Amino acid sequence: MNVAIIGPTGYVGIELLRLLYKHPHVNIHSIHSSSKVDTPLHEYFPHVHGMLSLQLEEIDVEKIAKACDVVFFATPSGIAKELALPFIDKGIRIIDLSGDFRLQEEGMYEQWYKNQPAPMSYVQQAVYGLSEWNKENIRDANVLSNPGCYATAALLGLAPLLVHGVIEEDSIVIDAKSGVSGAGKSPTMMTHFPETNENIKIYRMNEHQHIPEIEQQLAKWNKNVAPITFSTHLLPVTRGIMATMYGKVKKEESIERLINLYKECYQDCSFVRIQEKGIYPSIKQVYGSNCCDIGIAYDERTSRVTIVSVIDNVMKGAAGQAVQNFNIMYGLDERTGLDFLPIFP
Amino acid sequence: MNVAIIGPTGYVGIELLRLLYKHPHVNIHSIHSSSKVDTPLHEYFPHVHGMLSLQLEEIDVEKIAKACDVVFFATPSGIAKELALPFIDKGIRIIDLSGDFRLQEEGMYEQWYKNQPAPMSYVQQAVYGLSEWNKENIRDANVLSNPGCYATAALLGLAPLLVHGVIEEDSIVIDAKSGVSGAGKSPTMMTHFPETNENIKIYRMNEHQHIPEIEQQLAKWNKNVAPITFSTHLLPVTRGIMATMYGKVKKEESIERLINLYKECYQDCSFVRIQEKGIYPSIKQVYGSNCCDIGIAYDERTSRVTIVSVIDNVMKGAAGQAVQNFNIMYGLDERTGLDFLPIFP
Amino acid sequence: MNVAIIGPTGYVGIELLRLLYKHPHVNIHSIHSSSKVDTPLHEYFPHVHGMLSLQLEEIDVEKIAKACDVVFFATPSGIAKELALPFIDKGIRIIDLSGDFRLQEEGMYEQWYKNQPAPMSYVQQAVYGLSEWNKENIRDANVLSNPGCYATAALLGLAPLLVHGVIEEDSIVIDAKSGVSGAGKSPTMMTHFPETNENIKIYRMNEHQHIPEIEQQLAKWNKNVAPITFSTHLLPVTRGIMATMYGKVKKEESIERLINLYKECYQDCSFVRIQEKGIYPSIKQVYGSNCCDIGIAYDERTSRVTIVSVIDNVMKGAAGQAVQNFNIMYGLDERTGLDFLPIFP
Amino acid sequence: MNVAIIGPTGYVGIELLRLLYKHPHVNIHSIHSSSKVDTPLHEYFPHVHGMLSLQLEEIDVEKIAKACDVVFFATPSGIAKELALPFIDKGIRIIDLSGDFRLQEEGMYEQWYKNQPAPMSYVQQAVYGLSEWNKENIRDANVLSNPGCYATAALLGLAPLLVHGVIEEDSIVIDAKSGVSGAGKSPTMMTHFPETNENIKIYRMNEHQHIPEIEQQLAKWNKNVAPITFSTHLLPVTRGIMATMYGKVKKEESIERLINLYKECYQDCSFVRIQEKGIYPSIKQVYGSNCCDIGIAYDERTSRVTIVSVIDNVMKGAAGQAVQNFNIMYGLDERTGLDFLPIFP
Repeated sequence: MNVAIIGPTGYVGIELLRLLYKHPHVNIHSIHSSSKVDTPLHEYFPHVHGMLSLQLEEIDVEKIAKACDVVFFATPSGIAKELALPFIDKGIRIIDLSGDFRLQEEGMYEQWYKNQPAPMSYVQQAVYGLSEWNKENIRDANVLSNPGCYATAALLGLAPLLVHGVIEEDSIVIDAKSGVSGAGKSPTMMTHFPETNENIKIYRMNEHQHIPEIEQQLAKWNKNVAPITFSTHLLPVTRGIMATMYGKVKKEESIERLINLYKECYQDCSFVRIQEKGIYPSIKQVYGSNCCDIGIAYDERTSRVTIVSVIDNVMKGAAGQAVQNFNIMYGLDERTGLDFLPIFP
Repeated sequence: MNVAIIGPTGYVGIELLRLLYKHPHVNIHSIHSSSKVDTPLHEYFPHVHGMLSLQLEEIDVEKIAKACDVVFFATPSGIAKELALPFIDKGIRIIDLSGDFRLQEEGMYEQWYKNQPAPMSYVQQAVYGLSEWNKENIRDANVLSNPGCYATAALLGLAPLLVHGVIEEDSIVIDAKSGVSGAGKSPTMMTHFPETNENIKIYRMNEHQHIPEIEQQLAKWNKNVAPITFSTHLLPVTRGIMATMYGKVKKEESIERLINLYKECYQDCSFVRIQEKGIYPSIKQVYGSNCCDIGIAYDERTSRVTIVSVIDNVMKGAAGQAVQNFNIMYGLDERTGLDFLPIFP
Repeated sequence: MNVAIIGPTGYVGIELLRLLYKHPHVNIHSIHSSSKVDTPLHEYFPHVHGMLSLQLEEIDVEKIAKACDVVFFATPSGIAKELALPFIDKGIRIIDLSGDFRLQEEGMYEQWYKNQPAPMSYVQQAVYGLSEWNKENIRDANVLSNPGCYATAALLGLAPLLVHGVIEEDSIVIDAKSGVSGAGKSPTMMTHFPETNENIKIYRMNEHQHIPEIEQQLAKWNKNVAPITFSTHLLPVTRGIMATMYGKVKKEESIERLINLYKECYQDCSFVRIQEKGIYPSIKQVYGSNCCDIGIAYDERTSRVTIVSVIDNVMKGAAGQAVQNFNIMYGLDERTGLDFLPIFP
Repeated sequence: MNVAIIGPTGYVGIELLRLLYKHPHVNIHSIHSSSKVDTPLHEYFPHVHGMLSLQLEEIDVEKIAKACDVVFFATPSGIAKELALPFIDKGIRIIDLSGDFRLQEEGMYEQWYKNQPAPMSYVQQAVYGLSEWNKENIRDANVLSNPGCYATAALLGLAPLLVHGVIEEDSIVIDAKSGVSGAGKSPTMMTHFPETNENIKIYRMNEHQHIPEIEQQLAKWNKNVAPITFSTHLLPVTRGIMATMYGKVKKEESIERLINLYKECYQDCSFVRIQEKGIYPSIKQVYGSNCCDIGIAYDERTSRVTIVSVIDNVMKGAAGQAVQNFNIMYGLDERTGLDFLPIFP
């Protein structure tokens, strides 16, 4: 398969290249940028020097459409909603890693992204690529909307509880923590080393744009779900998301029953690993991999369940899941090009 | 005032020395250890070389009691419950920074610390040193039980909500994050650099020994308080605790009203700094200081309040608060020896 | 003494404020910026909230000169060379923490700073504030040129070897490592967290502007000194400089003799701490303090001496040494306002 | 090929498993430990859970020798010198990643490792596996002695200068910096997070056991080489080595000529990447890969060349080079199982 990547100079784009470079069924046909044409990629990323000798090209829809089977958008939100449209019109499959095609309800994109949305007719074609829970639809997707990093960690962790009605629908609290790569490659005060290092900061409290994305999917599983409380913390690490999530059970539970429920839900999922009783995952144990590791606690004193869900935000939270979805879209084993161990330490 | 310090070779002990070294009313009479007698302190802490030329001495109760007004215990839990008793018997004031005199209810220490408690008659003499909320009793304390680090961050953050009955008593979720210095100076797998760096880990989920300490104090403020959900995360930073806390309000609130409530509660407290609307504290902004900074959010979508409380675990979470309590006990301005700015960056 | 600070919104400026806030003989009269007038300081530095309630003012030379005894310039290089001149003309003592008054030789500033220098008549009035080696001149300085951070670490470490002719004058290699705060408060790609974290980078190889400053001072001690090899590494830490320095001895030495030489040279210097044989300083042991710790190795196999000199770049490498120089200029004990322990861990 | 790994519970062992798991010509037959028999590997490394279901077995020489083509020793120094002997006797090829078979000169192992060496008859069979410079001998090696991490970085960086007689043989200074994973998986005070974080420390100044290994190889290239000055710094990062190296040129050079020399020397080496003029490598750009990136500076002011050589200590400094050597030993393309991009950021 020939693929083109638009926006390869960000952290998600380069991770996508790392994966596709080794994917047995992919040929990286070309990489594109609207602003940085004719520069070799290694000027942005010295680590690919001598290994990936690609040059940034302009975005010529005709040319790309002719040569490629699929186009990945690794651009920030606000780009694909325009640039992807002509490809969609031509019937080229696109995989968008931004938030531009995620929110199906009118008005939500404007409210949370503070920006004009893509035309609704396009958004409605999009299939939400939460691989483990939407495989059937992903298979046939022409417009694949890859989930947000926080949304992936949160949804995979909460799904069994909501699908099976284990917790009170208005009791969900998500305390999410992310590494700094999630903020992208442009330097800001927020990501300036002396400000971030030895620190943990709160940002976008109850205002993060992944909130409506999470609620939209939760509502598909359980229509009684109430708005969630969602706080986001910036960790002094490069990669990794941990979502620590809390909910009140509807009736008395046992930790064994809960762990079994999770194991059953995810028994056919290569990348979701349920931890044993008393074991909680750390972000480093999924570093560089497409895994989502989930730990489960139940406290009889409070009747609350605590779910700890970790991913590598650049992988399962972005490029890794995009490749997983690509595999599903093309009928490949979902592990193709992703079946390596996390890197540790 | 002449003071002795027992257990100065840990991180809390050395921080206590840093503070007392500059305290205008304190003479550090002697430092003591049961195991490391006759070693100069700088063998444990090269940074004091040439500045603090103290030598570790054995613990001779008679000698210390004769020379000193107050004895600080900067020992791990399980030591002061025995070593402090003869000092108490002799009427020497003690300030214990461990958990040995914190839990007033029979059986609780055994349950949470997995150890035999101090004799209850001694425990009951102890005054809980949450400086901002117990000043009257602290003034006259002979046995001052200095609060735990997590407990300090959590209690200062929750107090106004509980004292004023703002939130449902069974709705409290505390998501706490701590720097590694909280785990002490002994190397373990948990604190081994390659395992902790670029990581965030969960430990003692719902089992941390500060839980009963927090619940005990919350119950003093509001006897209807239900057990709390409390999870503890290890951050890849040296110092700092952030407690992100969630509760459901009893009736509709506004962010302005809540912030005012906090400002009023803490208007006479030099070390508690309430953040303005939309501002949340980060741990680095209290580094090296005795401050507790508190940010408040209210989400109308969920009727939940989120409180973000940060401290330096070695300071307000241990040595700093101990000096603050010492000041109160001796009728000094509580800021004495603590009135410096946090160090930044 | 009334002091004004120009440029307090950088990392050096805020550290200066931390020190002067507690200095017993200083009143911080006002803080000034050319661009950010009328903003409260805590908008730049949340950590001073509620403690330092200063507002940025414009730079009115008349007003400042009337009210203040001394003006500190904590501005980047290129500012003081103009803004300081009217103060100098009025006979106000200035302490410049930038490189603008350091290079006495015509042409050097232009060559290394790529910028027009201050008028030579002003530069020649400046006294180089390497406190330990220039005390006599500092006492009477009207224009105090505070040394660069790398220069301080390197010069204090090399001085005894050059002054006493221990090493070959053309054998000096300086391998210097600095924390990121040295790069200032403006975010750049170089200081973007995901790029700096878990990394060590080289920058300005053999081109750092502290090279001529070091060579100028070395030449004062030993006129045969040849150009130095000087490489600068960016460490993934916030504070601290380590200079590891190498030289070939002229005749056979012993480690004992060398350590004694250093101890003698620095016997009256409160802030320079010579390590014992086999002990080498780490940057963390001087964190937040004005200390310069020096370790000495001698290898008989190679006849080379290795000197390890560490400082806190924001302290002894900038604000701390400025206060030390201020003390000397006003006949105070040089430790005034600086006599606290490093913060550890 | 069937391989066995002895010592897979350390950081080098697990990295070896990460690589061999994906190696197209390798079957991991079994993993062995002398002390931890019958434990599943994921108890030591949660990140392999559900992916690598290997169990630690005892070391039964007969059984292993029967089933395997090659045995990797990822044990600390002092183990293989005994445990490897029976395998060697049986003609099984071994690849030892420790220092046990590196020092060919009588007495050196004792002097630098403070331990009894392997019998010299075995040591002399060993081939030093500096892949780029010893390919011919590696091909036929029965006992492959994999180079030390520091030695690899230093030797690859210095080789062209020594082989071609560019620098004075007594002018070599190596300032080496390593991440903490190089210190292994056992927690110590040296590697305790609060002591290592935000720090840089010197250790084994002029005493590191890689010194004789480096000198032995340098002498093969240039018999006039004098003892080297070698200092080792512990960086607050998990992975990565940077060796900054200094030498005085014999006659006037130009940077262009030097870079060309390096490019020629390494033109057929997939893993060595020579940087262009003015570009210096950082450790992060080789993270997780088998690359060694080399930058070259020449300073006309001092006639000194500065070489910056970076590797991932766990990869090219250990497991990666071992796999590269394995490939050479079995006539495979040296990139087999290693041809992936570094992971960034």
